[in-house]
Amino acid sequence: MVDHYAVLEKHLVAVDCVIFGYDIRDKELKLLLIRRRFEPELGKWSLPGGFVKKEEGVSEAARRVLYQLTGLKDVYMKQSYAWGDVHRDTGGRVITISHFALINTFELNPVMTEASAAHWRSISRIPELIFDHKKIVERAHYELKEGIKLKPVGFELLPEKFTLVQLQDLYEAIYQRKIDKRNFRKKIISMNLLEKLDEKEKETSKKGAYYYRFIPSKYDDFKRQGFYFSLDVQ
Amino acid sequence: MVDHYAVLEKHLVAVDCVIFGYDIRDKELKLLLIRRRFEPELGKWSLPGGFVKKEEGVSEAARRVLYQLTGLKDVYMKQSYAWGDVHRDTGGRVITISHFALINTFELNPVMTEASAAHWRSISRIPELIFDHKKIVERAHYELKEGIKLKPVGFELLPEKFTLVQLQDLYEAIYQRKIDKRNFRKKIISMNLLEKLDEKEKETSKKGAYYYRFIPSKYDDFKRQGFYFSLDVQ
Repeated sequence: MVDHYAVLEKHLVAVDCVIFGYDIRDKELKLLLIRRRFEPELGKWSLPGGFVKKEEGVSEAARRVLYQLTGLKDVYMKQSYAWGDVHRDTGGRVITISHFALINTFELNPVMTEASAAHWRSISRIPELIFDHKKIVERAHYELKEGIKLKPVGFELLPEKFTLVQLQDLYEAIYQRKIDKRNFRKKIISMNLLEKLDEKEKETSKKGAYYYRFIPSKYDDFKRQGFYFSLDVQ
Repeated sequence: MVDHYAVLEKHLVAVDCVIFGYDIRDKELKLLLIRRRFEPELGKWSLPGGFVKKEEGVSEAARRVLYQLTGLKDVYMKQSYAWGDVHRDTGGRVITISHFALINTFELNPVMTEASAAHWRSISRIPELIFDHKKIVERAHYELKEGIKLKPVGFELLPEKFTLVQLQDLYEAIYQRKIDKRNFRKKIISMNLLEKLDEKEKETSKKGAYYYRFIPSKYDDFKRQGFYFSLDVQ
C-alpha cells in the first residue's frame, strides 16, 4: 500500500471502556475500574483502556481490552465518543475513543477480574479517576439512560429470566431514582416483548413472582413494522 | 511535557464533515460535497475533511474544516462517529471522526463555496463517494432523523421565522416521506415552544400563512422541569 499521507502528523489513539454491570442482588449499577499499571498516574483509578495497534481496528481494540479484562467476547458494546482535546492526557497527546459495554455481572469469571486487578464500583460511589475519565463515564451513563428508554438494551444487564420487580429495580438503578410501579408495568407489558414463564422467583417473597423472558425475535419483527420501543418512565 | 508513550504506534487522525443544509424553496435536504483535491481519489466526490493537527483538538479541526469551506463559525455541529477500520482509506491508515453540521443554506456565502468547489447535492441524489463516506453520510442522516424527534435541532435548518407548512416540509425532507399534517400540527403546537408572529408568508398562497418562531429559552425552561421534546411523527 502506497502511503500517500507519509508527511502528515500522527497521533496516539486509544480506546477506553466504560463497562457497566448490574448485580441483581445489590440492585446497583456498577462500573469496572482498574488501578493504572503504568506512568503517568501509576496506581490511580482508571477506566480499562489500551492503545490502538497498527493492524487493529478501533472496535477490535475495544473488544480486545474488554476480553483481556473479563474473558468475555460476546458482549453488548457500543462506541460512545471520541475525546480529542490536546491536553486531556498528561502523558502525551492521546485521542481516545470511549466505548461502553453492558454485562451481567454473574457472567464474569471472578478469577479473571482478580488477576487484572479490576474492581466493580457502584455508579453512585465512583472514586476519583484519572484525566477526563469522569466525564467519559458521565457521558456513557447518560447514553445508557437514554438508550434504555428507546431500545431494549437494559435486558443485556439481566439474566435470561427475571421478574418485573427485578426489571424495575434495574431501571431505578440506572436512573438512580424511584419510578412509578404501575406505569412502568403497564408500559412494559403493553409492548408485548416479554414472555411470562411458568416459573416463579421465590427467594425475595413467599408468594413468589413470575419470571419473564425478553424475546429478541419479537422485537425484530416489531421493528420491521415500524414499531418503536418506548419505556419513558417518569 | 514528558512523552510517556514515545515508543507506541501512532495513527493519522482526520475529521470528516457531513454538512446538511435545507433550502426552504426546493424543500430538499442537501449535503455539501467537494471534489477531492489530492491523491488518492483525486477529483472524486468526497465529504469535506482534513487531518487533525498536532496542537489542535478534534472538535477544533472539524470547526476549521467547516469554516474554511463555508465561512461560517457559529454553527450547530455534533460529533457523529469514529471510523476506525484498518483499511477504510486506500491512501494509508486513517482513523476519521465524522461530525455533522446543520446550516440554513441561505446563510452560506456563495462566493465561499464557489472558491472551495463545494456543491450542494440533494440527499436523495448523492453521487458515488470515496472510501466509506456513503456509510458516514447514512449514519449522520440517521442521527439527524432520530435527533429531530427528540430535540429541537430541526430549527437550525430553518430561517428565524417559518410557517408550519415550511416546518412540516423540513421534517418530510429529512424523513424523505410524507407525514400526517393534522397530527404533526397538533404535536408541535401542544409543545408550546413556538411563538406565533403577527406576520404572514404570502408567496406560496393568497390567504397567506402565519409565521412562527422557535423560542429556545422556553425549551430550556421546560427541560429544567423534566419536559421532553417529542415530535415522533408517523
